[in-house]
Amino acid sequence: MPTRVSVPRQSDDYTRDAASARRDFLKQQAGASLEHVGSYSFDPSVLPGNIEHFTGVAQVPLGIAGPLLVNGEHAQGEFYVPMATAEGTLVASYNRGMKLLHEAGGVKTTIMADRMQRAPAFLFEDARGARDFGEWLDEHFDEIREVAESTTKSGRQDIEQYSASRILYTRFNYTTGDAAGQNMTGKATQAACHWILEQYPAIDRFFLEGNFATDKKSSQINMLRTRGKRVVAEAIIPDALFQKIMHSSSELMYRARQVSNLGGFMSGVNNNGAHSANGITAMFIATGQDVANVAESSAAFTYAELRENGDYYYSVTIPSLIVGTYGGGTGLATQRECLELLGCYGKDKVRKFAEIVAATVLCGELSLGSAIVAEEWVDAHDAYGRNRP
Amino acid sequence: MPTRVSVPRQSDDYTRDAASARRDFLKQQAGASLEHVGSYSFDPSVLPGNIEHFTGVAQVPLGIAGPLLVNGEHAQGEFYVPMATAEGTLVASYNRGMKLLHEAGGVKTTIMADRMQRAPAFLFEDARGARDFGEWLDEHFDEIREVAESTTKSGRQDIEQYSASRILYTRFNYTTGDAAGQNMTGKATQAACHWILEQYPAIDRFFLEGNFATDKKSSQINMLRTRGKRVVAEAIIPDALFQKIMHSSSELMYRARQVSNLGGFMSGVNNNGAHSANGITAMFIATGQDVANVAESSAAFTYAELRENGDYYYSVTIPSLIVGTYGGGTGLATQRECLELLGCYGKDKVRKFAEIVAATVLCGELSLGSAIVAEEWVDAHDAYGRNRP
Amino acid sequence: MPTRVSVPRQSDDYTRDAASARRDFLKQQAGASLEHVGSYSFDPSVLPGNIEHFTGVAQVPLGIAGPLLVNGEHAQGEFYVPMATAEGTLVASYNRGMKLLHEAGGVKTTIMADRMQRAPAFLFEDARGARDFGEWLDEHFDEIREVAESTTKSGRQDIEQYSASRILYTRFNYTTGDAAGQNMTGKATQAACHWILEQYPAIDRFFLEGNFATDKKSSQINMLRTRGKRVVAEAIIPDALFQKIMHSSSELMYRARQVSNLGGFMSGVNNNGAHSANGITAMFIATGQDVANVAESSAAFTYAELRENGDYYYSVTIPSLIVGTYGGGTGLATQRECLELLGCYGKDKVRKFAEIVAATVLCGELSLGSAIVAEEWVDAHDAYGRNRP
Amino acid sequence: MPTRVSVPRQSDDYTRDAASARRDFLKQQAGASLEHVGSYSFDPSVLPGNIEHFTGVAQVPLGIAGPLLVNGEHAQGEFYVPMATAEGTLVASYNRGMKLLHEAGGVKTTIMADRMQRAPAFLFEDARGARDFGEWLDEHFDEIREVAESTTKSGRQDIEQYSASRILYTRFNYTTGDAAGQNMTGKATQAACHWILEQYPAIDRFFLEGNFATDKKSSQINMLRTRGKRVVAEAIIPDALFQKIMHSSSELMYRARQVSNLGGFMSGVNNNGAHSANGITAMFIATGQDVANVAESSAAFTYAELRENGDYYYSVTIPSLIVGTYGGGTGLATQRECLELLGCYGKDKVRKFAEIVAATVLCGELSLGSAIVAEEWVDAHDAYGRNRP
Repeated sequence: MPTRVSVPRQSDDYTRDAASARRDFLKQQAGASLEHVGSYSFDPSVLPGNIEHFTGVAQVPLGIAGPLLVNGEHAQGEFYVPMATAEGTLVASYNRGMKLLHEAGGVKTTIMADRMQRAPAFLFEDARGARDFGEWLDEHFDEIREVAESTTKSGRQDIEQYSASRILYTRFNYTTGDAAGQNMTGKATQAACHWILEQYPAIDRFFLEGNFATDKKSSQINMLRTRGKRVVAEAIIPDALFQKIMHSSSELMYRARQVSNLGGFMSGVNNNGAHSANGITAMFIATGQDVANVAESSAAFTYAELRENGDYYYSVTIPSLIVGTYGGGTGLATQRECLELLGCYGKDKVRKFAEIVAATVLCGELSLGSAIVAEEWVDAHDAYGRNRP
Repeated sequence: MPTRVSVPRQSDDYTRDAASARRDFLKQQAGASLEHVGSYSFDPSVLPGNIEHFTGVAQVPLGIAGPLLVNGEHAQGEFYVPMATAEGTLVASYNRGMKLLHEAGGVKTTIMADRMQRAPAFLFEDARGARDFGEWLDEHFDEIREVAESTTKSGRQDIEQYSASRILYTRFNYTTGDAAGQNMTGKATQAACHWILEQYPAIDRFFLEGNFATDKKSSQINMLRTRGKRVVAEAIIPDALFQKIMHSSSELMYRARQVSNLGGFMSGVNNNGAHSANGITAMFIATGQDVANVAESSAAFTYAELRENGDYYYSVTIPSLIVGTYGGGTGLATQRECLELLGCYGKDKVRKFAEIVAATVLCGELSLGSAIVAEEWVDAHDAYGRNRP
Repeated sequence: MPTRVSVPRQSDDYTRDAASARRDFLKQQAGASLEHVGSYSFDPSVLPGNIEHFTGVAQVPLGIAGPLLVNGEHAQGEFYVPMATAEGTLVASYNRGMKLLHEAGGVKTTIMADRMQRAPAFLFEDARGARDFGEWLDEHFDEIREVAESTTKSGRQDIEQYSASRILYTRFNYTTGDAAGQNMTGKATQAACHWILEQYPAIDRFFLEGNFATDKKSSQINMLRTRGKRVVAEAIIPDALFQKIMHSSSELMYRARQVSNLGGFMSGVNNNGAHSANGITAMFIATGQDVANVAESSAAFTYAELRENGDYYYSVTIPSLIVGTYGGGTGLATQRECLELLGCYGKDKVRKFAEIVAATVLCGELSLGSAIVAEEWVDAHDAYGRNRP
Repeated sequence: MPTRVSVPRQSDDYTRDAASARRDFLKQQAGASLEHVGSYSFDPSVLPGNIEHFTGVAQVPLGIAGPLLVNGEHAQGEFYVPMATAEGTLVASYNRGMKLLHEAGGVKTTIMADRMQRAPAFLFEDARGARDFGEWLDEHFDEIREVAESTTKSGRQDIEQYSASRILYTRFNYTTGDAAGQNMTGKATQAACHWILEQYPAIDRFFLEGNFATDKKSSQINMLRTRGKRVVAEAIIPDALFQKIMHSSSELMYRARQVSNLGGFMSGVNNNGAHSANGITAMFIATGQDVANVAESSAAFTYAELRENGDYYYSVTIPSLIVGTYGGGTGLATQRECLELLGCYGKDKVRKFAEIVAATVLCGELSLGSAIVAEEWVDAHDAYGRNRP
């Protein structure tokens, strides 16, 4: 076994010097130059809480799609949407969808629910112990909430219960303001659990997570019960617009949707739509979201109707959109600029941002969907998407 | 409806000038300065095929975890792993796991399968038509393969069939060399389908995608049948190491795993492990992967055993790891440097890279898992993960 | 197209004569004698509400397993369990499991939840309409309950909400006493919906079922949120008993369980155990349950622990056990006798019956599980299960 | 703990005397009379291989629906379908659907696939061991088939492989003639595995079932890859017939279908249709099928189209219909009569029977679907479905 040489750290580790020293170390260890990685425009002193062993940056190309026209409750008007990606076609495709929806009068967006959770599991001697504890939890909810609130400014709470065997799985739900809120819910729930453990000696074992919040993982429970924001984006698009802009038709779009619905039901997919992950990921990277949440945020329900007059009612429901406009990476240099471009940086902006994301997703769904039915898809990728070194 | 003002483009659109003009335009339209976005170290002329409406970059902080010790078939030895993220704790947590696994002798990695697909759906007058066509597909496979190969250098192929109603859903599987390969499989499949449509007039309707490849979406079919690389990372960790490094024990880890297994089965999660998306996302951003593939690549199967001597056998199987070391964003400035840091840039490196990703994931699973059972988790996030502007 | 000759009916259609006339008709139409079908021991006048076009009976062989020792809250002591089946080995296998569990001190059973539902879906102009209606539902819950109660004696109620697109899916939950209760919940919910439709004109469309109660179908929602009874059966079995009675060991049982858990998670099964449907179906046929509910009732969560002393903690959780001891087929001749054999006929007996079913299931799981690990399985079927005409 | 008194057995245990002695024993032990249970019309000597501890019969009411008009490849013409159930409305509802489909010209049925499996799991030292073994399996397939065939007359075979961790899960697929075939596949696979274990010493552990055949349990793998028969039933129904017979319309049916599709996708149901389990169960009890297979056979894919002329294309795909016309309970007295009524008893009849089941299911789907949209549903149950003792 080789002797393990740790990545070097300095007492003040968030400096250009410390980063540079690490790049030198890596050059020595692995023979790799990190010149471009070392090229960044901000002061590393802002980084504690965002990264350890800071060494430089990934420079991810950023394009702009838009204007996107949103008729939301929090987002209203036109937006130019920053998208960070290296996948050719992506920005062009979303842009095309935004053009279609702009002509159709914009995208209506609605936030249906908003809750972030941590999901501790409690074990008892037997199932009856789990059931009794469930009742106790209900009875002592006010005290538990008080303890949880002592650690955080998060708002409304409730506790869901799911039992199996001698285990009670719970979901402690919170509203989390403008933060995505995983950390604050973790802290609040830990505090609550410590209090519970003191009060309820019959608990045999306790784990702060029992795979019922499914942080960074897609799950039916979150698709049903919401994690983050549950957002719906809707639009009604006249057939003539499909013909004019998309070389498609509402009737053809609708037939393709039926085939995709059945295919997705049979294949066991978590999203019967097309590719919401593309738009979500590009916006998440651009705006400093926790990009790993794409795992959950990429679940979606698509529902369409072909109306008698040929209009196409089209909607996407994102049941687990996890976003913040405060905390996390949102305050970093380029990320903050991108949030500001959308008028979404800081306090009381998270719902506006969630609506813009959902509206963007809708545009991308119609664009890729149209391309598939118009058989332009592969050609578009061939024109835009080929990049060889 | 407002007059739509498109994002400005220039005849040579991949220049610093064109990008600068767009930033000026956005400042005018939205009042947002994009100074940091405009700070990048490479020549935009490399970008065609990666992005449209190039405006600048997202600078994503990059840290280094390691050394990671891998006993793979393609990756062997120590690696310093670049991770681009803004989530505090992430790099530190993976780094801690790498330390544990290094002392345990490293992570064994194995690629079990390798296939990328496009999934056209064919409709017929009735189910018998679909069944007949399925037989015809089998009989004419060699000709179909020849047509598909005429568009691409991709290798081995096969066609899976899944029927429902009057529809035959297919999966055209390919090996794709060092590229992730979605575009080349799309192109090859389109060519094959055009040939098929000419040969087989009974096809009533045809769509190039029927939700059976589930590109950018997680699905049971891909968890079962593989999309991209199916990789297993395994290790055997002595109990003493858990005690020493993780303030945990193999017995406690194992009990928590059982509770997570049942919780995940009940919650309908696509990953019974902890948080593979975190490591995968951070590596994907750093190395120019298509980050939206986190949607699929974050699925995983965890399997553990508590051996009689207290050793902990632990494994993660990633059934849909979609990676490339050629094409896409892999040739961009910082991205290429990060691949080179791993010795994974270019030809014949994709399997090595896949093994490093899987090994990294394993380290992160054991680190977060240990933190949860040792109840350090929230405290760690409180120390590292709080960043407020 | 042939002229359609309907099955003949008589003015008093529930008589031996009417049944006999139908058998004659079938002999004439299809040349088939139904002598044995015509052999039954009860007066057909009891059958209205149970069947139409009564023609005779299926005589399903009935065996007895037991004694089963139950330590329930409602079922206590020994029971001889009637099982109607034509699958050789089944009764013997459950009987063997009952012997094991009897020596182990019996099966502990616990009912965790109890709710039956009907799931109307409401459509609105847009998602906001659905959200507004959801709030209105909460506010007017007391009035809705009152209307629902006017049709039925069912007890506690609540309404769950799940939104997607412009649709609000709901679950109207009820307790239903000793009846399985699908019909009474249907009637109560229809009444409630008619009242709602009068009060809330913004409802665009309404369907009494929207695939969220999943009657006669297995679903994640019912596995999570319960349909019928959620019952846990638990036991602790010493290793010595496995060795003595099952030619197995707790350690081997446990290893097999881990492999089955992972296999089931990957295969997308709704039951990580062995074959609960076998015992449930045989008891359902014997006791006049609605046997089609096997579709839902066969879902299960198995959770096991190998304790330090070699004891095997084993549990089965049945999340959607749909049973009644009143109404439906429970009052028919043989069916009532079988319920009486268990002391479960009539009022206030449904929970006792649910516990006996769950305890029986547990015995069967351990028996088949042991046979598989002891490799007796195929041999047992070869000895008992071969019946050729 | 009470002294356990076993159910009494006799040296010749399949006699009226032995059964009577058991009824007496139960009367003594539990005070329950089993007079009706003791009333059966056949000689118990036929029962070895079907039941143990034979005590009598469950008399399940049997009604007839029809004529059902089938345009199958194996079933052609009119059939009077025996249904054993105690659920009021069921026979009437299927009968109504059969009337609709008769007027519409009948139900077209097609068997798409036919395979029964056993799914052994093999464990190795590590994942590479599992991969190597997978290759060995492919290479030695002919020898394995030969060994398996030595135990059974079953036909075509193949072996599917699914890997995770150090485990290779397999599915050994067989055609099984007119038998459902679980036992013969079990026996053939066991023989094959014993041969494999001799040949391949690197196998660390082996279990004959790893939850990948999911016998008696519903699973995505079986919905995708077929277990038993994969059957499609299709029909095209003019709008006028919906209006005339069902008090409904094709347009309303179609809208309800869309809502059910989305509801089912979100609720995680294994059947986006209505209630196929009802018809399948009633036919299974009547004809001596293994009724516990309802757990798997109740999965279904519904796909509908509203054609331009108002016609309604409607189809149901049953991916795991497990039926036999030979062996099991098919030769018992009433069961054989019911199979003979359909012309389906004995050799070379299983595909005909599968088609009749699927056609029956289609009729029931349209009947219940119509009732829901016409809001007759609850009223129908209120008229037919209320039976109180």
